[in-house]
Amino acid sequence: MATKKNKLKVFALGGLQEIGKNITVFEYGQDILVVDAGIAFPEDDMLGIDLVIPDFTYLVQNKHRIKGIVITHGHEDHIGSLPYLLREVEATIYATRLTLGLLDIKFKEHKLMDKVKRQCVAAGETVKVGNFKVEFIAVTHSIADSVGLCIKTPNGTTVVHTGDFKIDHTPVDGGHIDLQRFAELGKAGVDLLLCDSTNVEVEGFTMSEKHVGVLFERIFDQNPDNRIMVATFSSNIHRIQQVIDSAVKNYRKVAVVGRSMSNTVKVAQELGYLNIPNRVLIDASQINNYEDKQITIVTTGSQGEPMSALSRMAMSEHKQVSIKPGDVVVISASSIPGNEKAVSKVVDMLFKKDAKVLYDGLADVHVSGHAKREELKIMHALVKPRFFMPVHGEYRHLKMHKRLAMEMGMAKEDCFCLELGEVLEISPTGAKLNGSVQAGAIFVDGSGVGDVGNVVLRDRRILSQDGLIIAVVTFNGKTKKLATKPDIISRGFVYVKESEQLMADARKVVEKAYADWENAQKDGDWGNIKNNIKEELRKLMWSKTKRNPMILPVVIEV
Amino acid sequence: MATKKNKLKVFALGGLQEIGKNITVFEYGQDILVVDAGIAFPEDDMLGIDLVIPDFTYLVQNKHRIKGIVITHGHEDHIGSLPYLLREVEATIYATRLTLGLLDIKFKEHKLMDKVKRQCVAAGETVKVGNFKVEFIAVTHSIADSVGLCIKTPNGTTVVHTGDFKIDHTPVDGGHIDLQRFAELGKAGVDLLLCDSTNVEVEGFTMSEKHVGVLFERIFDQNPDNRIMVATFSSNIHRIQQVIDSAVKNYRKVAVVGRSMSNTVKVAQELGYLNIPNRVLIDASQINNYEDKQITIVTTGSQGEPMSALSRMAMSEHKQVSIKPGDVVVISASSIPGNEKAVSKVVDMLFKKDAKVLYDGLADVHVSGHAKREELKIMHALVKPRFFMPVHGEYRHLKMHKRLAMEMGMAKEDCFCLELGEVLEISPTGAKLNGSVQAGAIFVDGSGVGDVGNVVLRDRRILSQDGLIIAVVTFNGKTKKLATKPDIISRGFVYVKESEQLMADARKVVEKAYADWENAQKDGDWGNIKNNIKEELRKLMWSKTKRNPMILPVVIEV
Repeated sequence: MATKKNKLKVFALGGLQEIGKNITVFEYGQDILVVDAGIAFPEDDMLGIDLVIPDFTYLVQNKHRIKGIVITHGHEDHIGSLPYLLREVEATIYATRLTLGLLDIKFKEHKLMDKVKRQCVAAGETVKVGNFKVEFIAVTHSIADSVGLCIKTPNGTTVVHTGDFKIDHTPVDGGHIDLQRFAELGKAGVDLLLCDSTNVEVEGFTMSEKHVGVLFERIFDQNPDNRIMVATFSSNIHRIQQVIDSAVKNYRKVAVVGRSMSNTVKVAQELGYLNIPNRVLIDASQINNYEDKQITIVTTGSQGEPMSALSRMAMSEHKQVSIKPGDVVVISASSIPGNEKAVSKVVDMLFKKDAKVLYDGLADVHVSGHAKREELKIMHALVKPRFFMPVHGEYRHLKMHKRLAMEMGMAKEDCFCLELGEVLEISPTGAKLNGSVQAGAIFVDGSGVGDVGNVVLRDRRILSQDGLIIAVVTFNGKTKKLATKPDIISRGFVYVKESEQLMADARKVVEKAYADWENAQKDGDWGNIKNNIKEELRKLMWSKTKRNPMILPVVIEV
Repeated sequence: MATKKNKLKVFALGGLQEIGKNITVFEYGQDILVVDAGIAFPEDDMLGIDLVIPDFTYLVQNKHRIKGIVITHGHEDHIGSLPYLLREVEATIYATRLTLGLLDIKFKEHKLMDKVKRQCVAAGETVKVGNFKVEFIAVTHSIADSVGLCIKTPNGTTVVHTGDFKIDHTPVDGGHIDLQRFAELGKAGVDLLLCDSTNVEVEGFTMSEKHVGVLFERIFDQNPDNRIMVATFSSNIHRIQQVIDSAVKNYRKVAVVGRSMSNTVKVAQELGYLNIPNRVLIDASQINNYEDKQITIVTTGSQGEPMSALSRMAMSEHKQVSIKPGDVVVISASSIPGNEKAVSKVVDMLFKKDAKVLYDGLADVHVSGHAKREELKIMHALVKPRFFMPVHGEYRHLKMHKRLAMEMGMAKEDCFCLELGEVLEISPTGAKLNGSVQAGAIFVDGSGVGDVGNVVLRDRRILSQDGLIIAVVTFNGKTKKLATKPDIISRGFVYVKESEQLMADARKVVEKAYADWENAQKDGDWGNIKNNIKEELRKLMWSKTKRNPMILPVVIEV
């Protein structure tokens, strides 16, 4: 038992292609510490899925051992699955003030406010969670109040987890990344570094958030008479602050449009993370009481989401605001992979309304929140860990991050690219992969968690490609004769009016399949008649249309 | 009639968001000239659609007036719908040698070789098509043998159509863009310019194709012992030539893997567009007879297509080649919008196989085939048209291109951003929009052309999101009693084993809906019972699962 107790185990439970982003688990002896509990967004082929959460089975099975859940920052991919986890386990949540404020919105929606134990922490503090000591270290990222972690075990193992970070030397709120502390920890000796890998493909440094502020000022200067609208992520408080600063400087009012944006702005303002002078904020319903040059609008929809405020404004479907010629629309975000087409559709709609659109590529109105290669090198140089586990990235990112560490002098065998569920074990004598726990992605669809799996998705895929054909056969159980003519119903297959002949052929094929079966005198073998109908219809449809719809024979005995 | 005859009409018939890319029509008096006949690729929400062709109705209705079809270059978005058009109309096709070679592959597949009249043209030549004079002008693009056009009408109207182009001063095959001819035409007076707008969002100049060749040389130099594999578009002959050149210089053999790549290489070699020394090409089956350092593979799959050679090699599902550690894989293409995720999956698979992958962003192994802003300005400066019609771009590109023309001094009212089907009329006295013709996108699914429309797509969308539930009710026509218990079948909805209770509830709801109907004594009104069942099931499913599956009641009278 003693040797087992000496080991720290680290593993990631969920996510899709990205490892360790949504949730990471630390285990020492009997105690479990959870870091983050986020969601992933479904991929194109996960039809109808609303969101993807980690497989929490391991945590549920060991729930009495969970000593706490530590959250690094308030982005959905780090907090979004917390309500689902908290249905199953009970544990205190440790997070900074803004992160807790954003979590509270979520807990209220899920009616969890009374049940949840929360402890507010600040960068620089250390808390004891079970037998772990967890220190919070200030980092800069695209959301305020982000932290990295230093996790220590009783036997002296020290882990540094950067969380999501970039190195912003001129942060909007003056809250610098605590590079000195990372260095100090490194100097004292760090056993394991977990480090953000998102931007490891990109050379150089990520620009400061302030860079965007300078561009905003220029845009306001150049468009003194027009309404100015900025779409960005609702969680990017610093970006919103900079829009507000430019608006105030130009004697403009600010209207916040969109539910999630309003929620965040409210929380951030209450907690002091947004500095908005009196009488600057106006309600969206008041916009038309002002001249264009007095108006700034902050809104969501930077990813082209069809139901977002921006899309609805562009399509004149929004109750309060409609885009009009001359409006300046700034899309201050880069497209998340997979969203490019949607964004480009919104941009097209805005052009059709004769708005002046500033976006990706065209204008440099966004900076990343993640460290690029030169920043990653600085982190490695400061922390100089014995072992390295790249996190927050798809497999290629982890692998490239491993190569980066090796270029800086680490040994290949000291770098660990984990798969979901794989367990990395750190002891005073070394580190190694040792077994795995249940892990993976669970689909949430509507109110169902995990009731949609591969079979259901496969069916949805078939249905989405070529639709379906239902063949209904009713026969008399005694005489074995057809009780009525077979019926053919199709959906998502072809225009029915253009395919009357095809449907008539289908009916004949079904009648023949039934007659063959009847003649063969095989009574009761429904599987067989169903398979016959299926196969004959499949052949007919393929030969006539080169399509493979789902075929559902319904055979009824009366 | 005389005035009508004096007018040249120009319009675009098809495409999705891009105008004038897939097909443009010129009409003068009774004569019609068609330029290009391409396809568009279906968007994400066009479920199950294989490809999108223009609505040819107008051409079919006026087929006796079509004097010829001129093709600018051999890319799918300019030639892909030709086989569909040629099913409906008869006309001579004018194209350069390589373009015709690529068309022939298509005509053979569609068994059209005997029916098609083709005339080979070369840059510098002029042909008479009806009462149009069409001159072919050499341009550089990402496929060899591309041309722009000068179209003249009997009354002296002169149109310049750039086709897809970039200005490459060091083209791989030495075939320069004929800037002098564009200038000469401009000097003599051009009434209308149609100009490629694809890259109007991008500042500066597009780099020469030769730039990629230099990078290839470096990659070959740096990896003398590894197999080198390059994935690119099969139509990019110059890119393929550069891979072959690097291979030859390094005493390597070249294997061409993938059907479309093999087809193009064969045609291009036969026609003299690829220069491959003897004994350089080997069959894919021979690869394992050579050492790694002797092998170069040219293949398709640069867009992450799951069935492409590259994907199959990465998944070890390819008959002849499997990726192994140390292989160098160059993805020499940028991701077409919408393909980013697929490409990133293939890259991840390659990393898992321990290949060294060079791709987008990471290595500069691709250049665009389209003119960027500075090149567009040169084209405008040389041609100096009276009127301007931006083409080949989504709405925002056309609009930005119009702004570019205005920045260079054109009047706003002389620039025309057309919608699909809108007719631009040019006469000696001026230009104006005048009416429109039927135009749009037609979906091809399997062998069906146009038999899948919005209703079918809407059904596929519903089915893909939440699947379907079929409720089968059989009743005795005389007694009106249920003939057997109602049956509930679901597909793509939930795991059935996890939803037995839900299905039992559904059966009860259906029985109750039937009983209500029976009690109400409304006989024969099937619509009503069907709607009742539908509504009750919808309510049940929404309350229990927060999903809206398609509900199909099947009511049978026996």
